[in-house]
Amino acid sequence: MLSNIFKIEQIKYDDNSANEYGRDWTYKGSVNPKAIVFPSSKEQIKELISFANKDNEKIVPSGGRTGLSWGAVATQNEIVVSMEKLNSITNVDNEEKSLSCQAGAITQNIQNAAQQQNLLYPVNFASSGSSHIGGNVATNAGGVKVIKYGSTRNWVSSLSVITGNGTELHLNKGLKKNNSAYDLRNLFIGSEGTLGLITDVELHLCKNPPKLKVLLVSFNEFESLQKFFNKIFNQIELYAFEFFCKNSLCAVLEKFKIKPPLSPEMNFYVIVEFEAVESEKLLEIVEKMYGEKLIRDAVIASSEKQNLELWGLRENISESIAIFNPVKYDLSIKRQHLNSFIKEIKHIFKNEDSSKPSYFLFGHLGDNNIHLNLIPEPNKDIGSQKEKRLFDFLKRHNGSISAEHGIGLLKKQSFKFMNNKNEIDLMMMIKKDFDPNNIMNPGKIFDLKE
Amino acid sequence: MLSNIFKIEQIKYDDNSANEYGRDWTYKGSVNPKAIVFPSSKEQIKELISFANKDNEKIVPSGGRTGLSWGAVATQNEIVVSMEKLNSITNVDNEEKSLSCQAGAITQNIQNAAQQQNLLYPVNFASSGSSHIGGNVATNAGGVKVIKYGSTRNWVSSLSVITGNGTELHLNKGLKKNNSAYDLRNLFIGSEGTLGLITDVELHLCKNPPKLKVLLVSFNEFESLQKFFNKIFNQIELYAFEFFCKNSLCAVLEKFKIKPPLSPEMNFYVIVEFEAVESEKLLEIVEKMYGEKLIRDAVIASSEKQNLELWGLRENISESIAIFNPVKYDLSIKRQHLNSFIKEIKHIFKNEDSSKPSYFLFGHLGDNNIHLNLIPEPNKDIGSQKEKRLFDFLKRHNGSISAEHGIGLLKKQSFKFMNNKNEIDLMMMIKKDFDPNNIMNPGKIFDLKE
Repeated sequence: MLSNIFKIEQIKYDDNSANEYGRDWTYKGSVNPKAIVFPSSKEQIKELISFANKDNEKIVPSGGRTGLSWGAVATQNEIVVSMEKLNSITNVDNEEKSLSCQAGAITQNIQNAAQQQNLLYPVNFASSGSSHIGGNVATNAGGVKVIKYGSTRNWVSSLSVITGNGTELHLNKGLKKNNSAYDLRNLFIGSEGTLGLITDVELHLCKNPPKLKVLLVSFNEFESLQKFFNKIFNQIELYAFEFFCKNSLCAVLEKFKIKPPLSPEMNFYVIVEFEAVESEKLLEIVEKMYGEKLIRDAVIASSEKQNLELWGLRENISESIAIFNPVKYDLSIKRQHLNSFIKEIKHIFKNEDSSKPSYFLFGHLGDNNIHLNLIPEPNKDIGSQKEKRLFDFLKRHNGSISAEHGIGLLKKQSFKFMNNKNEIDLMMMIKKDFDPNNIMNPGKIFDLKE
Repeated sequence: MLSNIFKIEQIKYDDNSANEYGRDWTYKGSVNPKAIVFPSSKEQIKELISFANKDNEKIVPSGGRTGLSWGAVATQNEIVVSMEKLNSITNVDNEEKSLSCQAGAITQNIQNAAQQQNLLYPVNFASSGSSHIGGNVATNAGGVKVIKYGSTRNWVSSLSVITGNGTELHLNKGLKKNNSAYDLRNLFIGSEGTLGLITDVELHLCKNPPKLKVLLVSFNEFESLQKFFNKIFNQIELYAFEFFCKNSLCAVLEKFKIKPPLSPEMNFYVIVEFEAVESEKLLEIVEKMYGEKLIRDAVIASSEKQNLELWGLRENISESIAIFNPVKYDLSIKRQHLNSFIKEIKHIFKNEDSSKPSYFLFGHLGDNNIHLNLIPEPNKDIGSQKEKRLFDFLKRHNGSISAEHGIGLLKKQSFKFMNNKNEIDLMMMIKKDFDPNNIMNPGKIFDLKE
């Protein structure tokens, strides 16, 4: 009985709570959790896992619910475990350059706590204000600064977890270097709550960057954009290299009634973030490519306010296109195939009525990560021929259908299509090692063979 | 029969070959391989693994044999698989900034191939001239630039492996971002050949650093050294922060007949590598701390030649102290405990005859990684009370007995002592998933329960 473990105010059964805690940002279907519980201690989590193993209950870990792959969705009578009460930042160690916290700590609070010690937690994304660090770790969250700082994986120095069979593990214990057999910490990072529940996290911090600047630059041809990347990569320390298409830009300008800082008639736009001291070097390259008509237009921010305004053109895309209810793809492919991939997307998804956009392209181009957002055609199933052609192309070229969003419930089929059966079989064996009764987020990533 | 798989010239049985290929740099005991084979194709490796599974043969993967934990030692009639013929660098992709190679490629050749494209493979250590990339991956090799660039783990974008049950896997496929369930690539990194054999590796490359400079600085108190680190960490981009004790310095000066660049009478020395443009900022800090008598002496290199000379004082330590046949410990602990750890080491291992050194301390202090090299006391077993006190201290303070060298045969007992039984049990289960008949490097890291 849950009431043997939790106080009455720590358990919710009502529909409002179910709808709030039983889904992520993108899931529109119905949810059906058995209950939502709000543990206030690790002991309660251990008791819950022990109870679930005995009574064949299933558990869905729930963080800030900002996921995009239905990883935290409860549809099958699961007990949702909200980590929101376990949100303390327990220590910022200025000498070790590290921060310890509970899994429910909010990303932005972590960033702020680091900043108070003049240190940086550099993993950042649009949902930092509500995402939990436990969820970030469980999905290896990426974001806009991966090209400089890497994903969440690079910053986790310690994980405390309770596995699906109730074992408490303290992995890597905050060490900077520790080659002691298999790195179970890295196995939990990105495991989407299927191996166990993350309870505590320790993070590396780093020093703040020098003064940064933002450049916005436009291209008509994707090849020119790639030439630009290749040219600057070897010379400029890049903190972000983000791109978006004309449709994406126009959607933001329209939604926020912004006067465009440069002509919105070009096909591709890039936001470059770089160290202010490198401005001259970067502008020389830009001017040269402008002279060659490869770059069509460029704006460099001259103040922190302008930095933010230019960033806004990129960061507000998702919100601006939400009215289209787009189908979101989170794709990754090697740089050598990017150009033909962009062409293939155009070819597959071109609209018969060319006056309306049929898709939006944007994303972390410096990491070869493209977010394709399709506008669903009325009365047509998206899981169709066109999607198949997209995935076929990716599979042929060793791409990924989940660069950073994870698999969850949403991408199970395409995960199976894209990945080698032997590899998935090994993952299932590992899942059983940690969670023999399949109580942890069952049905996410894959369906275990019984 | 091996001769059904390999040509006659690909198999060696003689004692010289056994002694060359059946051991690593540090193992002094007797070896007893059944044979050494030199595959020239992935197909031969697959056939060998299939044969080993059928005939209950055991396999020891063998790279450049520069390991320090007896991970590549064959004492139990194993078949040693030397990867030295599979050493091609197959591609350097200047746009992707990546390099593909076979597992037997030598680290230095990889570094050179990258450099030919004006790119950098930044993982570097004393054994780069002979270590294989496959071995680096299997041990997650670190080295002198970890503080800036991280260990091998951070640079592997793709691994092809053949598991102990003969399954060929292509993990991560060279992608910069790929959140597709459990990261099996990271499981193989550091697994010391116990899960399967690595056949191909793809590595990220990066741009070359700007001009770097080297500073050598001396301290009498370890606390002052730590103050120095804390002060510069937040202001200076560090490429290396290496330390050594007076005994280590004197051994190098003696062995190479070098005139000391500063007084060799201080207790601790630090090599800092940093960007030349930050010289002024760094020297200001040094001067201030010199004025406060915290720093006792400092030398800054004024040429590339002097950079190398100062580096030599650190890099030649191992060679210079080899005559003492030291017992090597590779320890890691959080920064907050470093000072008391250094004191504890002094306390445990002080020599009754104070005129002779009893140990050498050096290592990657910026990563909290200390190499303690003990001079064995004549007629005394090192695996003694003193070692127990050292490990007790580390265990109490969540340290590691293998920061970067791995476990192998040498550290099995201390690995078991330091780590949680549940964690080791899970590792053993994972080992069985990949290698059900325990043919891959059996007895390394742990002895599987039958």
